[in-house]
Amino acid sequence: MSLIVVGTMAYDAIETPFGKTDRIVGGSATYVAWSASNFYQPIRQVSIVGNDFEQKEMDELATRGVTFEGVEVVKDGKSFFWSGRYHTDMNTRDTLVTDLNVLAQFNPQLPESYQDCQYLMLGNLAPAVQKSVILQLKNRPKLIVLDTMNFWMDIALDELSDVLKLVDVLVVNDGEARQLSGEYSLVKAAKAIRAMGPKYLIIKKGEHGALLFYNEQIFSAPALPLEEVFDPTGAGDTFAGGFIGYIAKHDNISFETMKKAVIAGSAMASFCVEKFGPERMKEIQPADIEHRLEQFQELTCY
Amino acid sequence: MSLIVVGTMAYDAIETPFGKTDRIVGGSATYVAWSASNFYQPIRQVSIVGNDFEQKEMDELATRGVTFEGVEVVKDGKSFFWSGRYHTDMNTRDTLVTDLNVLAQFNPQLPESYQDCQYLMLGNLAPAVQKSVILQLKNRPKLIVLDTMNFWMDIALDELSDVLKLVDVLVVNDGEARQLSGEYSLVKAAKAIRAMGPKYLIIKKGEHGALLFYNEQIFSAPALPLEEVFDPTGAGDTFAGGFIGYIAKHDNISFETMKKAVIAGSAMASFCVEKFGPERMKEIQPADIEHRLEQFQELTCY
Repeated sequence: MSLIVVGTMAYDAIETPFGKTDRIVGGSATYVAWSASNFYQPIRQVSIVGNDFEQKEMDELATRGVTFEGVEVVKDGKSFFWSGRYHTDMNTRDTLVTDLNVLAQFNPQLPESYQDCQYLMLGNLAPAVQKSVILQLKNRPKLIVLDTMNFWMDIALDELSDVLKLVDVLVVNDGEARQLSGEYSLVKAAKAIRAMGPKYLIIKKGEHGALLFYNEQIFSAPALPLEEVFDPTGAGDTFAGGFIGYIAKHDNISFETMKKAVIAGSAMASFCVEKFGPERMKEIQPADIEHRLEQFQELTCY
Repeated sequence: MSLIVVGTMAYDAIETPFGKTDRIVGGSATYVAWSASNFYQPIRQVSIVGNDFEQKEMDELATRGVTFEGVEVVKDGKSFFWSGRYHTDMNTRDTLVTDLNVLAQFNPQLPESYQDCQYLMLGNLAPAVQKSVILQLKNRPKLIVLDTMNFWMDIALDELSDVLKLVDVLVVNDGEARQLSGEYSLVKAAKAIRAMGPKYLIIKKGEHGALLFYNEQIFSAPALPLEEVFDPTGAGDTFAGGFIGYIAKHDNISFETMKKAVIAGSAMASFCVEKFGPERMKEIQPADIEHRLEQFQELTCY
């Protein structure tokens, strides 16, 4: 049994009101893997990088049970690069640079060793690429989770609609749920989006937590109120990683397990924003996670 | 033992994307009383109205255990009138008319019969008026809750700071918490505001729920996700009424009871927004409240 994670492995330049970094490892698959590996291993990574991607980043993830047979290294190419600047409220940001580089030619081929996949996490990527990975699996995974963003709704809505029919859980933020559904009310948006394919919908609301929709049921998870959000980069991917990792660990896709998985994802995201990039994710220990999950209990139980 | 509610009793004209009404009963004390009386009676109202205030509105509240000895009726005056128009997102509104009328001369005198007060709810009003009520009580109530708004922070900050030293619980929304504290992070804002006097702080976040702060503890209550918010007028007052009513009913001011009281307030507010003005509040029955509280359990428990 394994968890496949598909997404970018990249470098970012990030500027927040608290500081800036010119080059730090990033990408959706990087964050998902760091987060999910706290709950479940092995993780089979699917991505593409250039000759500039440092081996030590892969080595670090390898110690967390991440395998790289499905990661293509393009010898004469450069890794995907993104640069952004966050506004004072940390909820909005300007994208300064997006260099696709090797990502423009990403056409993942799943190695045979990846066919033991039971859980599939499709990180934010072109919907057609996400779909091609699903179609390469000989046995359908127990759960397919797809993360996407407004960018793909703008330029590849047909492909996105197409892949949505094949997945179990969609993860988007509130603005994206409204854009995709054309509904302002999140309850109506959830109904409309679930009719597009995914049985489960998670709507992330940043500092306001997340909502999980399934049939007539709704679960509301808070975000941990923080003194300071240092850098929100990767928080959504980290959430998704905690979510799928928790589910894979318990090998259970009941609604009750999914609720706890949403809390696990929220807890992981609350670490992610404490430092630049994935720095904090590289530091945290099992006891830190245990303690944070207790904080969520205190925060919500009455 | 009794619960004193201080605030406006008024008429509103409301326009939302779903319709409009030219004249409907409103005012902070009206909403608080309708809400709190579901949990606790008697409620001793303190307010001021003009000759236009319909007796039937008081009669309806009287059947809910609300007494009016502390409500001044000005024979040659008109009741406070407010008119507003909500934007499509329902989170923002324009105030079209504010006619203070009799409210300009409001100088409440507490009747002797009100001295049995154990719980005091100071609805949104001039801070100096809120303070004068506290000072008229011979025995300090077990709990004093104060609701206020940005308007008073703009024009009467000194008086507001003054009365804040005398209260136990402050209820504001997120924007107001940021304005009052000068801090963007709500955790930092809560620390700063609690240093101004109130041991407890409730920050309302509309559709995102509410946060309760006390010492190092934080409790996060969700709002019930709704298909449609018909009219948000009075939702904050209704929240406050459910909160203080629940506490008075259980006659307990522990943090554990306060958490449940925040949920009770959130449940009452979720009814309030379903129809214009206090219409829905006049309809709901104990079984409706019971059912809604179960929905909150399902929404939050994992």
